[in-house]
Amino acid sequence: MDDTNGPIRMTDHTVRAFSEQLEGLSALVAQMGGLAEAQFAAAIEAVSRRDSVAAENAVGGDARIDAIQQEIEDRALKLLALRQPMAVDLRETLAAIKTAAELERIGDLAKNIAKRALVLNREPPIRLTQSLARMGKVALSQLKQVLDSFSSRNAALAEQVWNQDGEIDEIYNSLFRELLTYMMEDPRTIGLCTHLLFIAKNIERCGDHATNIAEVVYHMVRADHLAANRPKADFTSETTIPFEIHQA
Amino acid sequence: MDDTNGPIRMTDHTVRAFSEQLEGLSALVAQMGGLAEAQFAAAIEAVSRRDSVAAENAVGGDARIDAIQQEIEDRALKLLALRQPMAVDLRETLAAIKTAAELERIGDLAKNIAKRALVLNREPPIRLTQSLARMGKVALSQLKQVLDSFSSRNAALAEQVWNQDGEIDEIYNSLFRELLTYMMEDPRTIGLCTHLLFIAKNIERCGDHATNIAEVVYHMVRADHLAANRPKADFTSETTIPFEIHQA
Repeated sequence: MDDTNGPIRMTDHTVRAFSEQLEGLSALVAQMGGLAEAQFAAAIEAVSRRDSVAAENAVGGDARIDAIQQEIEDRALKLLALRQPMAVDLRETLAAIKTAAELERIGDLAKNIAKRALVLNREPPIRLTQSLARMGKVALSQLKQVLDSFSSRNAALAEQVWNQDGEIDEIYNSLFRELLTYMMEDPRTIGLCTHLLFIAKNIERCGDHATNIAEVVYHMVRADHLAANRPKADFTSETTIPFEIHQA
Repeated sequence: MDDTNGPIRMTDHTVRAFSEQLEGLSALVAQMGGLAEAQFAAAIEAVSRRDSVAAENAVGGDARIDAIQQEIEDRALKLLALRQPMAVDLRETLAAIKTAAELERIGDLAKNIAKRALVLNREPPIRLTQSLARMGKVALSQLKQVLDSFSSRNAALAEQVWNQDGEIDEIYNSLFRELLTYMMEDPRTIGLCTHLLFIAKNIERCGDHATNIAEVVYHMVRADHLAANRPKADFTSETTIPFEIHQA
């Protein structure tokens, strides 16, 4: 069975073992996805309900997510080295590595949001946290959908998520303007509003990572790339806020 | 040469062809690194010298970087499928994919910084842009070093970069506080300072990506992971800015 001049030949036995390992890898990604989703949900709860216990959970859970990412990478590398998958199996193995990398970043973002929530929860409530929570829910729903598309190998669903990214960006744009106006009206809130600003940005980035995963899933299933020009509608980097607004 | 029951056997000829393809892949990553570095440098120039031409270049150059990333991925996938590299060759191929992903994000960050510079350059200068430029130079130097470590397969240099990440975070922390104070003292600057705040955050993230590349290089060369607990010294997410500061 073992060819000393080159890689292992595929017998029925090795094919079965390989397919089990690939399924195991995929299941681990799904598990990591579930954890990242739960952690992101807890971070949003921490903001919307001023729930510091949820915040502590979201901060504490990140190490587990990091550990799973490491395991996915190590397993995928072994699989590539020992089994040398081809075509769709190769794409699945790489999709596991790439999806895990995106999920790891979502875990980081959730942790960062939760840390900021802990600070916010020590101070008087700010009205705009509710808009943030709404934005968070949209991002969470996209994350759920894209994880479903990964598990069910559904390229059409992945493409749908990919097309939705503009929605989060629009909420972000309007929230961004609201936040600036709020700060200008009451400069004592600048410190706290800065946290809200970064929470909003982090939620928007979570949406971007969901979009990235959608691209990975699409490529895994269809062996083709979603259009190079992804939907992009966060224009806040190009916005000038006129000096006069603060007097409104 | 072609074994119909399995992958291609390695003859002298295929070994040579393989090693040429791997070198080609590596050279493409180096080229992409050079472009990302140039684009990031232009973005920092755009901020520090109020140079809108540099800014336009940095914005326009991003598409090229994205295209190279796509090519690196496609080539790496073909290499994995057709050549089925093992051990260090496998790690090099994966390192190319992962480094390209980090560089793509650095390109995005440079583009975002440059867009914000275009806005800032239309408004009166703000003193703090110089601190930003200093921070940008530190990040740029880390990016240079880590790209050198990639090209020279130097794990020790990669580890050195990895250990330096705290420096950027420290500058970021102090700049962050300066910016908040500045906004509180003159709320008319809030809109512009928000751009500075995000530029600072983007530079800090560029440092993070350099650190990620350092981890990739280390693993590629040593087949081992840098400690799971990376240096982390951005504490701004945990900072409360007291309401009283604005009255100072």
